[in-house]
Amino acid sequence: MTLKQNIRDKINKSEELVGVIGLGYVGLPLAVSFAIEDIQVIGFEKSEEKVQQVNAAENYIGDVKDEDLEQVVKNDKLKATTDFSKLAECDAILICVPTPLDIFKKPDMGYIQESCETIGAYLKQGTFVCLESTTYPTTTESFILPILEEKSGLKEGKDFWLAFSPERVDPGNKQFDTRNTPKVIGAMNDDGLEIGKAVYQKVIESVYSVSSPRIAEMVKILENTYRLVNISLINELALLCGKMDINIWEVIDAAKTKPYGFQAFYPGPGIGGHCIPLDPFYLEHIAKKFGFDLSMIHAAGHINNMMAHRMTLKITSALNRHKKAINGSKILFLGVAYKPNIDDERESPSLKIIDETAKKGGDVYYHDPFISEIKTDEGRLYNSSEFTPEFLNSMDCVVISTKHDVFDAEYIKEHSKLIVDLKNLIKEPSENVYKL
Amino acid sequence: MTLKQNIRDKINKSEELVGVIGLGYVGLPLAVSFAIEDIQVIGFEKSEEKVQQVNAAENYIGDVKDEDLEQVVKNDKLKATTDFSKLAECDAILICVPTPLDIFKKPDMGYIQESCETIGAYLKQGTFVCLESTTYPTTTESFILPILEEKSGLKEGKDFWLAFSPERVDPGNKQFDTRNTPKVIGAMNDDGLEIGKAVYQKVIESVYSVSSPRIAEMVKILENTYRLVNISLINELALLCGKMDINIWEVIDAAKTKPYGFQAFYPGPGIGGHCIPLDPFYLEHIAKKFGFDLSMIHAAGHINNMMAHRMTLKITSALNRHKKAINGSKILFLGVAYKPNIDDERESPSLKIIDETAKKGGDVYYHDPFISEIKTDEGRLYNSSEFTPEFLNSMDCVVISTKHDVFDAEYIKEHSKLIVDLKNLIKEPSENVYKL
Repeated sequence: MTLKQNIRDKINKSEELVGVIGLGYVGLPLAVSFAIEDIQVIGFEKSEEKVQQVNAAENYIGDVKDEDLEQVVKNDKLKATTDFSKLAECDAILICVPTPLDIFKKPDMGYIQESCETIGAYLKQGTFVCLESTTYPTTTESFILPILEEKSGLKEGKDFWLAFSPERVDPGNKQFDTRNTPKVIGAMNDDGLEIGKAVYQKVIESVYSVSSPRIAEMVKILENTYRLVNISLINELALLCGKMDINIWEVIDAAKTKPYGFQAFYPGPGIGGHCIPLDPFYLEHIAKKFGFDLSMIHAAGHINNMMAHRMTLKITSALNRHKKAINGSKILFLGVAYKPNIDDERESPSLKIIDETAKKGGDVYYHDPFISEIKTDEGRLYNSSEFTPEFLNSMDCVVISTKHDVFDAEYIKEHSKLIVDLKNLIKEPSENVYKL
Repeated sequence: MTLKQNIRDKINKSEELVGVIGLGYVGLPLAVSFAIEDIQVIGFEKSEEKVQQVNAAENYIGDVKDEDLEQVVKNDKLKATTDFSKLAECDAILICVPTPLDIFKKPDMGYIQESCETIGAYLKQGTFVCLESTTYPTTTESFILPILEEKSGLKEGKDFWLAFSPERVDPGNKQFDTRNTPKVIGAMNDDGLEIGKAVYQKVIESVYSVSSPRIAEMVKILENTYRLVNISLINELALLCGKMDINIWEVIDAAKTKPYGFQAFYPGPGIGGHCIPLDPFYLEHIAKKFGFDLSMIHAAGHINNMMAHRMTLKITSALNRHKKAINGSKILFLGVAYKPNIDDERESPSLKIIDETAKKGGDVYYHDPFISEIKTDEGRLYNSSEFTPEFLNSMDCVVISTKHDVFDAEYIKEHSKLIVDLKNLIKEPSENVYKL
């Protein structure tokens, strides 16, 4: 039996052992997806705490159902470990580690590199390896492949197979989850593609093949660059509309009546999360190697960079109506999550605005029903405040910075003296409501 | 009976006389839409030729059905005239004149100004006036209103009503026409809005009200700025992908499998037509008045400006494979229309590429089944060439610049020595096909 026949055979019999590296918002839902289908899964994770949580069926990812995690842990289908030597047992290894940018907005390939070096050290013949983390096109071929081959002494296409298949996780999306979101995959060769599709088709309804890993890498970047560019565009237009006394929200609602060729994006205090503010800059990074300037991404980055400052100016203008300055005013931010109804404040624009207003002498508070404490980029620590009528009324300015469904426009309006509404929560114009 | 009651009454009885100024690709379909509903329409047009054509039921607009024009002319429901004094008879006046940019990309308000001065000279009490031409936000309130009031001596809101309702014509669109494309309208006041909706609802299925003309003006600009920005983004990414050996078309097809948050745009030799290359620069123009720089539009404009040159470089690179230069080579452009299956070459990127290749000494030809002759920006004149196997084979390079449905990939591939495919007409990779 060839190596390929062997893994195909295991997959057919559901006897494959799947290893998932990284048990974050991508890896844990994926691991649970396999395990719930009675496929044996090992979750590899450096954090002792996360490993203990998973093995105790303590769910820490909003997109994972508690009962699913309980079931797969109880049935011994999913085991988490910090022992990476168990990679040697795996038939398929799926890499779901972070790919952050460093403070100079350069890709930090450290997590991928470390994962690949570890995989290479334990890789057995006949294993399928796939990266899911967003990265610049050519990473799989030019960065990962050499590490794996060198560390393992094995040959891709003969001894093991390598592919790229971007995660498309949209935290908090109730309609599309791991199972029903189509997945793109590009492998180094036809055998790897065949095996990779067989692996993923067990848990994902639609797997879409492309001709190379770099195509698959570019697909993810295109998707998120599209979002970055369009959010930046609407943010810039919102700032102009503010000056021209045009309600941008009304404009967008009307434009949406066009039945073709338009997709609505909405303005806000900036772009947050782990994907959209980062992914396009991966492309900008590799483009430089090709002597190429990406002017749309550059302009979008520029807008995004200035948004926190512009939002602080909005707060300044609002307070000015009440003859107050930021310095010495009590300012409450409602919502620090980077998007509605999730408990994630990574890259959230609110944190930057909080830093800027605090630095200007503002007496800053925040309330977020999903996030009990925060640490800003500049290291300020806050706990979520109360949300009582008295507390709202004691503020000089209430800033609506995330549109959580639980925030009631009427309640906030009734009890606040001055509101800066960055998310169009309060629809009717009012003296005391200053809108983006 | 008040003036408002009077016009509402006429509309109820279908006794209103509608005047449409400008019988181009917006005005003629609109005029025919009213007339086909047995509403009396006068079409005002400065071109004697167009007036004669309309009155002879000779159709010159692709989106108008020949039989509809014949019917309304035969029934005397639509009459075209160069006599603008007849504006005095109209109950509703709809302005559909061009709003071009001048050679310095500044708005040329000449057509609007002239129309308004003429309307003002003849305006009778109780008339509804509406501009459909795309323009910068605040035009209706700050540019049109003063002219109409001064020239007529009448008062808006009392003697006549003024509104803005952007045309959304998409030439060649078989699914959405004047009737079933929702129409946005913003008026100076509630009475104007009520009358305007009554006028348009006769011929348009869905009329969507916004709170002011400037909102309606901004709606149209947003729609087309969205398109400009996204086409520019994908064009820039296509250029990078060309350098990185990534097939951008395959990337887009895969990205389209994402079931939310993505809308596909396709690259090409540049942006053409009467809207997308122009409209966003109207906004850029007015933004300057507010001390505001629109960096996304600026970056998009930059990309668009360089596309013709970049496409000429693609032709140079392709010819170079055959050890040839543009200078002295026979180059055939297939398609000069700015988009598929229409007969309009305004602002078409093909014209700019033709100018640049001709200037470099290329022996340039074109073939377009819809356009029999062209004049380039620099004044070069060409007639559409034959499209025979012998002629294709006699060319050093065949450039596919518009993806008309009638262009058969196999036929072109079989008979051409070298192809530069800017529109992904030829799917399979091949030695002699050089793709964008």
